[in-house]
Amino acid sequence: MRCEIIAVGTELLMGQIVNTNAREIARELLSLGVGVYYQTVVGDNEERLTAVIKQAMERAELLIFCGGLGPTDDDLTRETVSKVLNVPLEKNAEWEKKLRELFSRFKRPFSESNLRQTMVPRGALMLPNERGTAPGIYLEKDKYTFVLLPGPPGEMLPMLKGQVIPLLEKKLAARGELSVLHSKTLRVIGLGESNMTDMLKDILDNQSNPTIAPLAKKAEVVLRITAQSPSFQEARELLESKAAEIRAILGDHIYGEDDDKFETSVGRLLIESGKTLALAESCSGGFLSHRLTNVPGSSGYLLAGLVTYSNEAKVKFLGVDPDTIATQGAVCADVSLQMAAGVRRACGADIGVGITGIAGPGGEPTEKPVGLTFISLEAENFRLTRENKYWGSREEIKERVTQTALYLLRQFLIGKLKSD
Amino acid sequence: MRCEIIAVGTELLMGQIVNTNAREIARELLSLGVGVYYQTVVGDNEERLTAVIKQAMERAELLIFCGGLGPTDDDLTRETVSKVLNVPLEKNAEWEKKLRELFSRFKRPFSESNLRQTMVPRGALMLPNERGTAPGIYLEKDKYTFVLLPGPPGEMLPMLKGQVIPLLEKKLAARGELSVLHSKTLRVIGLGESNMTDMLKDILDNQSNPTIAPLAKKAEVVLRITAQSPSFQEARELLESKAAEIRAILGDHIYGEDDDKFETSVGRLLIESGKTLALAESCSGGFLSHRLTNVPGSSGYLLAGLVTYSNEAKVKFLGVDPDTIATQGAVCADVSLQMAAGVRRACGADIGVGITGIAGPGGEPTEKPVGLTFISLEAENFRLTRENKYWGSREEIKERVTQTALYLLRQFLIGKLKSD
Repeated sequence: MRCEIIAVGTELLMGQIVNTNAREIARELLSLGVGVYYQTVVGDNEERLTAVIKQAMERAELLIFCGGLGPTDDDLTRETVSKVLNVPLEKNAEWEKKLRELFSRFKRPFSESNLRQTMVPRGALMLPNERGTAPGIYLEKDKYTFVLLPGPPGEMLPMLKGQVIPLLEKKLAARGELSVLHSKTLRVIGLGESNMTDMLKDILDNQSNPTIAPLAKKAEVVLRITAQSPSFQEARELLESKAAEIRAILGDHIYGEDDDKFETSVGRLLIESGKTLALAESCSGGFLSHRLTNVPGSSGYLLAGLVTYSNEAKVKFLGVDPDTIATQGAVCADVSLQMAAGVRRACGADIGVGITGIAGPGGEPTEKPVGLTFISLEAENFRLTRENKYWGSREEIKERVTQTALYLLRQFLIGKLKSD
Repeated sequence: MRCEIIAVGTELLMGQIVNTNAREIARELLSLGVGVYYQTVVGDNEERLTAVIKQAMERAELLIFCGGLGPTDDDLTRETVSKVLNVPLEKNAEWEKKLRELFSRFKRPFSESNLRQTMVPRGALMLPNERGTAPGIYLEKDKYTFVLLPGPPGEMLPMLKGQVIPLLEKKLAARGELSVLHSKTLRVIGLGESNMTDMLKDILDNQSNPTIAPLAKKAEVVLRITAQSPSFQEARELLESKAAEIRAILGDHIYGEDDDKFETSVGRLLIESGKTLALAESCSGGFLSHRLTNVPGSSGYLLAGLVTYSNEAKVKFLGVDPDTIATQGAVCADVSLQMAAGVRRACGADIGVGITGIAGPGGEPTEKPVGLTFISLEAENFRLTRENKYWGSREEIKERVTQTALYLLRQFLIGKLKSD
């Protein structure tokens, strides 16, 4: 079944908003094996919308519209589709009742123009909108399927996923055309893209179904596995069995799936281990504290994070030796280790983390370059310091140094890190 | 001049990427008064791309393509446009030289397929690409202007703004069709959208050119002013004169323009005042430190930020009275003020900020709801505490409470805040 996605709205043509709906719709259709051949954007203009609909009917059987279902005069999708297909609009009593209730609950007057949103082409299915006043429309006529969705992504997406996709799935299955695409993402830490692809060489060279796509992100690598099958069950089985093969090779380099965040997985390990944590940050400026405290429940293990930006604060709160700073500067291995040890002692924590470095740009002229960082971990009978050099903007360096600190913390918690 | 934007790429149709290029191109064209009437997305398929080009030529004179200029066989835009227009491709010696140099510098072999990227339709202008191997193409034929741009936004955008827009501007000016749209955004703090529109009622009610659009953002309000004129100079003058009128009314509620960040404007005030700062954060978890240290030069005024997540850390580092915590809990006005005073004293700073609250979700069952926060400011002969209740997710509450803390800090620095 060939599909064309038609977004209606002058605000898209003017570049006021990005057409994210087209992407979301394409992704959902792909998961059923439906190919999108064209995406079109047209303004709120009846003549041009009519031309676009007629042209789409020459090159697709499934037409998915979004936008133009509002109550005002420039919302034309419903009326234009009804004219082109020559199917009259009829008042939908169920939706009128719902709208009248809604308006009276919020004490807003119900006007004639609101009635436009109760109109549905004869023979079409009305798709209730849980988050707005415009219902969707699902209409089959001859060889065509027309789907009309509201424009706001928050209304469009639940309607698409909850109502339209199941309808299309049933239709495709009945026609023997269902081809499920099922994907999952494995999130990898502590391996570069090339190292990872080397480890997975056999699997990557011999892939067919599922396919496997490695992708480098800012501070990690992800692997996207995609399986295709006529049934959901089989697609899922193909996927899980390939994921198990990959897990067996990459082991604990895989920290999570899909939308998991790395700090969440580290938090989980801290809870499991029963260990408490204290942080001493300099160049990362509190970003490590921020990332860890974004995880609900982090107050269970994070005792404190001291952003000791000035040298005086490093000495006073962490007991860093002023002589070390005087002789080696604040950015050196000794200071980062003293920061880790100092914050652990001061807070009575099980693990102390220290970070110092140069986040740039500029700073005092020195032989130490922007991006130079030291991270230390200190615990009972354990001490470790790592020197790294990162490139990028100030915020990117903060991102990378905190990612490495979280990585070291995780390796320590899973027993994969040896004391220096 | 009517424009159609044509994005070429199967990855767009499959929903792997969002068509942000169309938005950026539309915005830039709008600034010249060029109307975009259609946006189309088509895959890497010669037949369908040919049909799309022919159709676009029936409804637009300016066709802007992006994507499909790569060196591989599925990159078809250059060749298809040349066939449809019946203009032969010719090797561009300048770009071939540049590419050969580039490849030899990076010690990569230069293959025949790379030569495809040196081909330019006869009579067209080659647009050098500063960030990639695919040059752009600008071709005028009969009443049409064809612009071919590379797909990656990082390559497309500089070429569009730096080369294409000036060419189009000259062309439009020569035809007397230039209609410059010039915009600027004023960033407003400490006023809700409705308060602001009340203050600006006369200006908003009587707007024509420039137009003024208020827009509520997550933790602030912005005002977008847009002026239209046949000349850049006049557009700029219209804009600046309206901005001055608005500044006279909103005064120091305006903290910046366009992409300014609030933390940057607060940092500027700290530098001007010569005052130093120390932070004591609980529920905001280091996010205030993170925001302030994102500003280059923040080490000049930020001495330290102590994220005292546990009660013990509040007592130990800040000298908060354990009795206060025992009787009132850690989330109360007294604790936040003691935090602000404690961190100022401990760091020897001019200003101390204390933040405590409940970021949720969950937490211990208590009569204190998620979103309850206290912010205190302490300085010589100055102390102030504000209680606020925020809604939203954990991260949204962190965003809002740090925004308010920055706002109070700013009001203090500009002398608009009275001690409690």
